[in-house]
Amino acid sequence: MKIGFIGLGIMGSRMALNLQKAGYELIVYNRTKSRAKALIDGGASWEDSPAEVAKESDILITMLSTPQIVRQVAEGEMGFLSQLATGRIWMDCSTVNPSFSREMAGKAQARGIRFVDAPVAGTKGPAEKGELVFLVGGEGEALETCQPLMEVMGKKTIPLGASGAGSSMKMLINLLLAQSMVAFSEAVALGKAMGLEEQTLLNVLLNVPVTAPFLAAVRPKLESGNYEANFPLQWAQKDIHLATLTAYELGIPMPSLNAAKEIFAGAKQAGLGEQDFSAIYHYLNDH
Amino acid sequence: MKIGFIGLGIMGSRMALNLQKAGYELIVYNRTKSRAKALIDGGASWEDSPAEVAKESDILITMLSTPQIVRQVAEGEMGFLSQLATGRIWMDCSTVNPSFSREMAGKAQARGIRFVDAPVAGTKGPAEKGELVFLVGGEGEALETCQPLMEVMGKKTIPLGASGAGSSMKMLINLLLAQSMVAFSEAVALGKAMGLEEQTLLNVLLNVPVTAPFLAAVRPKLESGNYEANFPLQWAQKDIHLATLTAYELGIPMPSLNAAKEIFAGAKQAGLGEQDFSAIYHYLNDH
Amino acid sequence: MKIGFIGLGIMGSRMALNLQKAGYELIVYNRTKSRAKALIDGGASWEDSPAEVAKESDILITMLSTPQIVRQVAEGEMGFLSQLATGRIWMDCSTVNPSFSREMAGKAQARGIRFVDAPVAGTKGPAEKGELVFLVGGEGEALETCQPLMEVMGKKTIPLGASGAGSSMKMLINLLLAQSMVAFSEAVALGKAMGLEEQTLLNVLLNVPVTAPFLAAVRPKLESGNYEANFPLQWAQKDIHLATLTAYELGIPMPSLNAAKEIFAGAKQAGLGEQDFSAIYHYLNDH
Amino acid sequence: MKIGFIGLGIMGSRMALNLQKAGYELIVYNRTKSRAKALIDGGASWEDSPAEVAKESDILITMLSTPQIVRQVAEGEMGFLSQLATGRIWMDCSTVNPSFSREMAGKAQARGIRFVDAPVAGTKGPAEKGELVFLVGGEGEALETCQPLMEVMGKKTIPLGASGAGSSMKMLINLLLAQSMVAFSEAVALGKAMGLEEQTLLNVLLNVPVTAPFLAAVRPKLESGNYEANFPLQWAQKDIHLATLTAYELGIPMPSLNAAKEIFAGAKQAGLGEQDFSAIYHYLNDH
Repeated sequence: MKIGFIGLGIMGSRMALNLQKAGYELIVYNRTKSRAKALIDGGASWEDSPAEVAKESDILITMLSTPQIVRQVAEGEMGFLSQLATGRIWMDCSTVNPSFSREMAGKAQARGIRFVDAPVAGTKGPAEKGELVFLVGGEGEALETCQPLMEVMGKKTIPLGASGAGSSMKMLINLLLAQSMVAFSEAVALGKAMGLEEQTLLNVLLNVPVTAPFLAAVRPKLESGNYEANFPLQWAQKDIHLATLTAYELGIPMPSLNAAKEIFAGAKQAGLGEQDFSAIYHYLNDH
Repeated sequence: MKIGFIGLGIMGSRMALNLQKAGYELIVYNRTKSRAKALIDGGASWEDSPAEVAKESDILITMLSTPQIVRQVAEGEMGFLSQLATGRIWMDCSTVNPSFSREMAGKAQARGIRFVDAPVAGTKGPAEKGELVFLVGGEGEALETCQPLMEVMGKKTIPLGASGAGSSMKMLINLLLAQSMVAFSEAVALGKAMGLEEQTLLNVLLNVPVTAPFLAAVRPKLESGNYEANFPLQWAQKDIHLATLTAYELGIPMPSLNAAKEIFAGAKQAGLGEQDFSAIYHYLNDH
Repeated sequence: MKIGFIGLGIMGSRMALNLQKAGYELIVYNRTKSRAKALIDGGASWEDSPAEVAKESDILITMLSTPQIVRQVAEGEMGFLSQLATGRIWMDCSTVNPSFSREMAGKAQARGIRFVDAPVAGTKGPAEKGELVFLVGGEGEALETCQPLMEVMGKKTIPLGASGAGSSMKMLINLLLAQSMVAFSEAVALGKAMGLEEQTLLNVLLNVPVTAPFLAAVRPKLESGNYEANFPLQWAQKDIHLATLTAYELGIPMPSLNAAKEIFAGAKQAGLGEQDFSAIYHYLNDH
Repeated sequence: MKIGFIGLGIMGSRMALNLQKAGYELIVYNRTKSRAKALIDGGASWEDSPAEVAKESDILITMLSTPQIVRQVAEGEMGFLSQLATGRIWMDCSTVNPSFSREMAGKAQARGIRFVDAPVAGTKGPAEKGELVFLVGGEGEALETCQPLMEVMGKKTIPLGASGAGSSMKMLINLLLAQSMVAFSEAVALGKAMGLEEQTLLNVLLNVPVTAPFLAAVRPKLESGNYEANFPLQWAQKDIHLATLTAYELGIPMPSLNAAKEIFAGAKQAGLGEQDFSAIYHYLNDH
């Protein structure tokens, strides 16, 4: 079984490497070829376009940053969708909005291709260690075929129902991530202004059950001020943006999320877009 | 050593009972006498005013719902402050704004009374089991004297510095509590609109590290729709309100917190003020 | 010169009637034929599809409610774009986002069709009286050809530059309309809660220079509680939504607009979507 | 009849000068004596404390910047309230929250002093020209006595009812002022990002009925970037803050106002507090 893998960024490169280590034969493509070097050195085949990758793949995995890029790679010039043979599987691990996943599922099915949306919970570290959590939307058989791959790249697979369900759950997780980061950062900013020491604040607030556990993992960034991106701020902003679009389509008011969205917009305008999303702490604390 | 205890609501009654069980002699007062019945049956003395309580107390504990009520009980007609002897301790466990704590500390010190602000983290359950966490602002000696009492009522004491520091930290914890509840509730509302089952949403979202651990304890309320108050929604609203006042005084913008504040205002307007604060979930999900 | 007119809703029907009264020969289409009755009685030709309208039109005017519907009518099955002859003009008076206008301009130009985006300021009344203000994006020659038609339907034409500029300005006007309505409604709600009479509030606030003049025209709706739609609330919500999309694309934080957006989302969820947009007053005052 | 006048800032100095020009005998006090120079040169008596002013005044006018300062000047050391004779009138033109006005009314009445709250609509220019609008809360007789003074300082007097009613209406006007400024500034920021020229934006948007007329008067500041304060930004922020306090007390959700409040907080944090309130335009446009 040959695995096509398109999108070798922070996440994708680490996920593909785990597949390679587990013995899977990979065919890879990325906008910037240099990022594929380790995989090619390890035996992966390089192709010059998504279309070429598709011709040889049994399962094609995409791990890309926005719905626009997924669309371009799937349907644009030299896109893969028209080249994937009937009965093959497209597993999209990108974080996109659910309506986009359903649109892609429809287009794939119209060509006899099976579609699985399988975005992941977890950032750079878990991707490297093969400890991601897969949130999966898609049918039984295709899902079974993908299951061993997800076991190599992750520690847990959560099947959630029809196409789009994985993207739906991922959207919720990412908006909670962003909201927690904003609320915590505002709280620390207030705490410091009230005269409490930053160390005391982190010691106490990260050890009471009102803060999300992921914040402890982020703490070294907050303390060092080194916001090298595990999950870039502008992607977090994009995910919140997509969530508010979906909320608009479905008629759900989300005043708190929209307030957070604009704080991220401010941080991006202030030049923090390519820093880690946790740099919202810096934005709210060191103004 | 005689302990005065004023304020026998959801929290205070349970805290006082733990002191009584540990053998402390109590003198109690509450606006509604009936709530003191169990304590009186257990041997506590009842007094008809805060002033009368103060006359006999070595340490006077207050556990009241708003700064206005603390002020009334301390300084109003038949208030306790003018009746507490020099060298005695006033330990205020109420959740108030830090500037109010500092004002009270100043007034107490002017009369030779030692002041400790010791608000608690934890709601009805931990209060009952003596598992509260005390967040303490105040001087060394007074704090040492209060320490054994806090050990009876709680599982942990966190000294934070000068007067007002306990109230400062408590304010942050409560605003994170409220913000987490709002963000989670909005996320579930969106998830349901996207077609995911409520049970699935709770199962997944409460087991990923982007949600605050206290939410698991709140889950039965969300599922049953029975929002009997551990921590009334209107108190959560008041605490956020006090936090935004403090932020205004200190010049800290908090757009996310203010958005949450208005969601709570909407919920209170909708008649949920006396329900548990987690009824914000009901407000955002069953509109 | 034959004028095609597609979209005969609240606005379009009145605009087309003014063209007819001025002697223009009309070819019309609308999703619901019954709304075209007065125009047909007055001599307009009815066609059964946008495509049929296009075949005979020198200038084709569209006045539709959303970008999705414009796209469907232009490019969908029996759409008009492929049937409009080279050199003809498409004048889109719909309120859409600027990037959509530019996309349509590009597609039109690729077929040798000239495109003018000419959304209007003004609602039902001005549409009826031919007193609209046209906000126009588009090239000189096409604009000159359209000028006499805009003079019949409106009192003023404001040329703003390249394609999309009309839609850009319209977007700003509509968001200011919505924001003014929200701010005024919140203010009155507070005023009433403070004990001032609604009549006094309207008398004073509508006569100081801090409120937008259009509010005086809306006053009868606020007083009567009859919110028959001149400009449906869900269209106002859509326009704000499109503005926030554009702001996201361009990296502009708009916290105030996003807060207003969610108030409109709440009003729509409360069932007011088809009422006039000014029903946000009812939503904020009679909760 | 002798008029005491306390508070000679941007507004007060101009109001007092108009009284002097009309022939009234003035007794004045201000924290900074230098600001009283022109009045003293014109014949006004200077006193070294509010208490001294009160001893000789038939009507005492206060025009101060915050409730805290009013309280200090009225009730603090050398305050005027205990020195004002029975039957005298205190007319407070300061912008304060209505509950504060009612508190002061109560304290005045307890001493047999008649109280009128008469905040003004209008900034530096109208104050200079005697064209302010007085928004008046208070009883008939006291009001009649004050009427000629208000006619000298203003062009219009609007009686609104019992004590506090003037402050209530003033609060609404100021929040609408601030909200309009924010909405307009956000709209222009978006317009510029969409490629429209600032001049075009101002030309069009200030001439459609969706913007408040006061904005035309503010335009020179926006164009020049010279934000010399007529109405300092931090006072606008304070007024919104007081409005949200009142809304909290009365149980009125105001999500839009609170979003604006935090934008002002950001602008103040960015160092614009002493600039004109219209500098929020600069804050939102030149980030």
